[in-house]
Amino acid sequence: MEKFRFLTSGESHGECLTAIIEGIPSGFEINPDFINTELKRRQSGYGRGARMDIECDTVEIKSGVRFGKTMGSPVTLVIKNKDYQNWQKVMSIKPEDFTEEKSFSTCRPGHADFAGSVKYKTQDLRNILERSSARQTAVEVAVGAVAKQILNRFNIKCSSKILQIGKVTENFENEIDRVKAQGDTIGGKFEVVYENLPVGLGSHVHWDKKLDGKIAQAVMSIPAIKVVEIGENPLGYAGSEYHDEMFVENGKVIHKTNRAGGLEGGMTNGEPLVVKAVMKPIPTLIKPLNSADIKTMTNSEAHFERSDTCAVEACTVVAEARIACVLVDEILLKYGGDYAEDIIIP
Amino acid sequence: MEKFRFLTSGESHGECLTAIIEGIPSGFEINPDFINTELKRRQSGYGRGARMDIECDTVEIKSGVRFGKTMGSPVTLVIKNKDYQNWQKVMSIKPEDFTEEKSFSTCRPGHADFAGSVKYKTQDLRNILERSSARQTAVEVAVGAVAKQILNRFNIKCSSKILQIGKVTENFENEIDRVKAQGDTIGGKFEVVYENLPVGLGSHVHWDKKLDGKIAQAVMSIPAIKVVEIGENPLGYAGSEYHDEMFVENGKVIHKTNRAGGLEGGMTNGEPLVVKAVMKPIPTLIKPLNSADIKTMTNSEAHFERSDTCAVEACTVVAEARIACVLVDEILLKYGGDYAEDIIIP
Amino acid sequence: MEKFRFLTSGESHGECLTAIIEGIPSGFEINPDFINTELKRRQSGYGRGARMDIECDTVEIKSGVRFGKTMGSPVTLVIKNKDYQNWQKVMSIKPEDFTEEKSFSTCRPGHADFAGSVKYKTQDLRNILERSSARQTAVEVAVGAVAKQILNRFNIKCSSKILQIGKVTENFENEIDRVKAQGDTIGGKFEVVYENLPVGLGSHVHWDKKLDGKIAQAVMSIPAIKVVEIGENPLGYAGSEYHDEMFVENGKVIHKTNRAGGLEGGMTNGEPLVVKAVMKPIPTLIKPLNSADIKTMTNSEAHFERSDTCAVEACTVVAEARIACVLVDEILLKYGGDYAEDIIIP
Amino acid sequence: MEKFRFLTSGESHGECLTAIIEGIPSGFEINPDFINTELKRRQSGYGRGARMDIECDTVEIKSGVRFGKTMGSPVTLVIKNKDYQNWQKVMSIKPEDFTEEKSFSTCRPGHADFAGSVKYKTQDLRNILERSSARQTAVEVAVGAVAKQILNRFNIKCSSKILQIGKVTENFENEIDRVKAQGDTIGGKFEVVYENLPVGLGSHVHWDKKLDGKIAQAVMSIPAIKVVEIGENPLGYAGSEYHDEMFVENGKVIHKTNRAGGLEGGMTNGEPLVVKAVMKPIPTLIKPLNSADIKTMTNSEAHFERSDTCAVEACTVVAEARIACVLVDEILLKYGGDYAEDIIIP
Repeated sequence: MEKFRFLTSGESHGECLTAIIEGIPSGFEINPDFINTELKRRQSGYGRGARMDIECDTVEIKSGVRFGKTMGSPVTLVIKNKDYQNWQKVMSIKPEDFTEEKSFSTCRPGHADFAGSVKYKTQDLRNILERSSARQTAVEVAVGAVAKQILNRFNIKCSSKILQIGKVTENFENEIDRVKAQGDTIGGKFEVVYENLPVGLGSHVHWDKKLDGKIAQAVMSIPAIKVVEIGENPLGYAGSEYHDEMFVENGKVIHKTNRAGGLEGGMTNGEPLVVKAVMKPIPTLIKPLNSADIKTMTNSEAHFERSDTCAVEACTVVAEARIACVLVDEILLKYGGDYAEDIIIP
Repeated sequence: MEKFRFLTSGESHGECLTAIIEGIPSGFEINPDFINTELKRRQSGYGRGARMDIECDTVEIKSGVRFGKTMGSPVTLVIKNKDYQNWQKVMSIKPEDFTEEKSFSTCRPGHADFAGSVKYKTQDLRNILERSSARQTAVEVAVGAVAKQILNRFNIKCSSKILQIGKVTENFENEIDRVKAQGDTIGGKFEVVYENLPVGLGSHVHWDKKLDGKIAQAVMSIPAIKVVEIGENPLGYAGSEYHDEMFVENGKVIHKTNRAGGLEGGMTNGEPLVVKAVMKPIPTLIKPLNSADIKTMTNSEAHFERSDTCAVEACTVVAEARIACVLVDEILLKYGGDYAEDIIIP
Repeated sequence: MEKFRFLTSGESHGECLTAIIEGIPSGFEINPDFINTELKRRQSGYGRGARMDIECDTVEIKSGVRFGKTMGSPVTLVIKNKDYQNWQKVMSIKPEDFTEEKSFSTCRPGHADFAGSVKYKTQDLRNILERSSARQTAVEVAVGAVAKQILNRFNIKCSSKILQIGKVTENFENEIDRVKAQGDTIGGKFEVVYENLPVGLGSHVHWDKKLDGKIAQAVMSIPAIKVVEIGENPLGYAGSEYHDEMFVENGKVIHKTNRAGGLEGGMTNGEPLVVKAVMKPIPTLIKPLNSADIKTMTNSEAHFERSDTCAVEACTVVAEARIACVLVDEILLKYGGDYAEDIIIP
Repeated sequence: MEKFRFLTSGESHGECLTAIIEGIPSGFEINPDFINTELKRRQSGYGRGARMDIECDTVEIKSGVRFGKTMGSPVTLVIKNKDYQNWQKVMSIKPEDFTEEKSFSTCRPGHADFAGSVKYKTQDLRNILERSSARQTAVEVAVGAVAKQILNRFNIKCSSKILQIGKVTENFENEIDRVKAQGDTIGGKFEVVYENLPVGLGSHVHWDKKLDGKIAQAVMSIPAIKVVEIGENPLGYAGSEYHDEMFVENGKVIHKTNRAGGLEGGMTNGEPLVVKAVMKPIPTLIKPLNSADIKTMTNSEAHFERSDTCAVEACTVVAEARIACVLVDEILLKYGGDYAEDIIIP
């Protein structure tokens, strides 16, 4: 991300999540209500646990917006953690508040716990859990909601849908109920589509300019994502079946199919961008898995921290957000401009 | 890529491909023979066409290596295009050599042609083909072969295999023959494995530090890749089935399964890194697809430039190379060091 | 800045200034009292105006630190603007609060006003002033105070002094009083020194790795700085006089002079790093300069916003902070490490 | 450098210097003759030694340009080292060619030798000299000459002059003769001016977007530069004297003075960009300085490698080139565009 660059911060039970976005031109309308709607979407979805009710996230814009429009200066977004009041001591920055309350040392399989404890040399896995929690995606959704408002100005629209939960491709709620009744968790596959993108975002000229690669990074780095696909999975198609033929109609080049998912040669080709991803089942299980206690170095049952049965719907919202950020960055790189109304997509 | 950074250049029928790698510490042994072996691997594989024989790539190291070891200064790799002598006029840098020989204006579906012509405003698609050709991956393999020699010092080993060609999971050669006889092309799925990686490459603390994301970018940006997977595709697994339990054995934390593919929380967890990818069928077909001529704006048959039936094996070598570069970058970031023998992985 | 990377945000009269620092290893002791002491230093100094009393900045650490030590996750710093209560309407993010109160359209010479208004297309120069104000350096000093605490662990120490105010090289306070009595402003020259740096930070191998260049950027981009020098200004020295001879004493290579200011070939050479800079006089004058009103397009007197007579001392503190950030980044790049106690400078 | 990004490589006595530039839009006219003229300028100037005659640099463009215009793909520049034929054995990449011929171990004061030998752990200072030599600036001038041709399309013009050699502000040649007769070396001060820049390159909104900082890095990282100034050194001016008043004339905002050197708030303000720098005397002296032999760890006389008396004129050309690259990057960032004729500066 070269023009729309941002950093996020915040622990799961710390005071707040924060993001600073640097590089937005002046003059874009930013409505916090839209950001809050997106935050709500992330918290909704069948299969979410109790925390979602506690949270009810709302964003505060601390800088970069004045009288409803971006000023050109960095935009700061803050989401308070509503639960923080109960965690102030446990998450205190002060050395004198040191406590082992809420500390734990049995790694949760499928989480950052084990690798994080080795990397950052800690035996209190709370230090790893707090940042690796999916909670951090809330502020990423907020950043994405800013990006979506920028895309909106260019009439670029987003949609998404769940394709599969576990092995099931319809009636997802039944499947989630079934899994929940077993105290288990389940993942799934979803699709995000962006329409009305200009031709030529990304480039074929260098590997790190290819838009498919940038999107793959943005989506694969969402917690729990293990598979990313652009367009139709080509496995089993012959060349004569897979590629999207082109036609000239009314003086325009058009495709009648979109197996490429809108990307050829690492560039948008005018068709809808179609990105699919598979999320693994949430690793925090009520029936704990076998695991290792890194303090006592003995076999032990994995730590359980309150959790959901299925978060595919939330994950879809995060993926929409991540892709929105990549697309805004590409548009700003391609078209330049320091002021919203001067940025014209031909 | 922050420490092991590189740029590549070169047209498919230009004089040469070039790469500059900046950021390699001093004292690493670099053997051009190993690079040439990797280049050979890229050119081999069942299903390749005639160009492979012309090429027989060999690398020249133009800087950064002295008496067999890196000096700390940037390393330059050059691969001459053997076929250049026949293309000197067509690819000339001089305005006075302008010719329409070898120029074409009918987009090849599945290629960068259409989007590239719009983006870079050219009606001679030669200007797009020359850089978007898979030929550019030759020098990327050379860069990766440098990276592999660095990994080799740390005893990190790479292997790969083809999992599927079209719908077929064994006797791949028969399937390729069958497709070739039809004048068609076919893609496939492959797997790259890196073993003996230290725990804690990548990080969970920020989305753009997650190693799964970086690898996904590196692999998805290879021409023709449409799907990237880390470890086992979780679709259909319940949480209790998917996650890799941990055990303490002989004072060490171990996993007995590796569905995570060696990455948890965006970090290596000590298990082999397993990356899978699906390559689409090569889009250049002997039986040309319907397409658009962007000069005349009429329907037309796609341009045919000499091509292969199946390049999955070559693509596997490119993926190995790309991942090697990411891993070296992570190791240099994590362990620091300006001199090979001072870089110790505990 | 590749490892110690940060973004800052905040308007001069907005709710707060914020910084997110990403890339600090775990285990470093961070004391907010030290940050506050540095903030106090920035606000002190002979020649400052009334705002300094209003402000009395204090930092809040919102993430990344637990029980006194860094966790490895991003660190968030917030400094509230004490004056914000009087500016809530003027700086509101809501479109319905739109007001022209405190808006102005006559550019202040020497400020970002004119260029900023053209770039970001605004006729209310408040939109430019708010971010270009030197107020933003408060949070940069806070970031630098985090960096200094990291340097402190490696026993790297900072000092600084004013070399000149206007044309005067001693009794600076008299000179400031004299200028103040005239309703004028004055700049000056100062020096920042870092001692005990390891040999070999930075590198000669590529232009953008040279430490002198990175420091020059960090210092020249401080508001009002026009000149940066490394070590002794060589103008007028012959080669035989300027360069620092080396000697072997007690088995060590030493220099007896340090005209190079601790940098040779873009790398630290073991001697103290000496950076000098010249700050221009503060451009906001009680006796306003001639200027242009960009709304009416007429000649006009420059807008006056409360100001200081001389801010060289504050600027020195900012320069210390900026250089601290560069040095921490170099140390993390050179030595690697994810945990404070594992990072050993030989 | 985010859009116009490049890497350079090459040893002083290696086969060649190479640069790859990635990010140039298509359609810019690139004339190698102009690059060669710039290379000639770098080699000229009163006070240069014998090597300049050997070299007579010429560029070869290996990629990215076709029929006189950029293609959008990376541009490769190669400058052969004419002297290489005599150094093939000494600079060989093959381990079996190992020789101590031309190796040396006595550090040259003022050079990268000492710090480089510690950093990259070598006792053969040839490994450091070869890359830290000012020879590398040849290919940087070539890159800058590409940038200048891009600037030329926008009618942005460069000029420069020497302001001072040693203590002398005119009749520079006499001074150089005098110093040469003493076997000594001398530095000087020069000025580079770019005219016709649009308003608003760079930005005040974040420290690392400020154009003064970027230019300071670009110039300070040139070998031997110790001082960088933007515009008039403000030391000794009162605020009322220093800042450039603005006036409205013929419906335009104008300045009548340019002490700011064309930059206010880190942005271009429409006036000529004026950058000054001081180069130290060349450190390689015929009368060698006292130094340390890092192999024997004894006092010794510094190694002498053929050298010049004064290279200020060459350094001026390098500074022009470096600044050109920064300016092109800023223009591409600000105005976007993938095709030369589509990039319109209003």
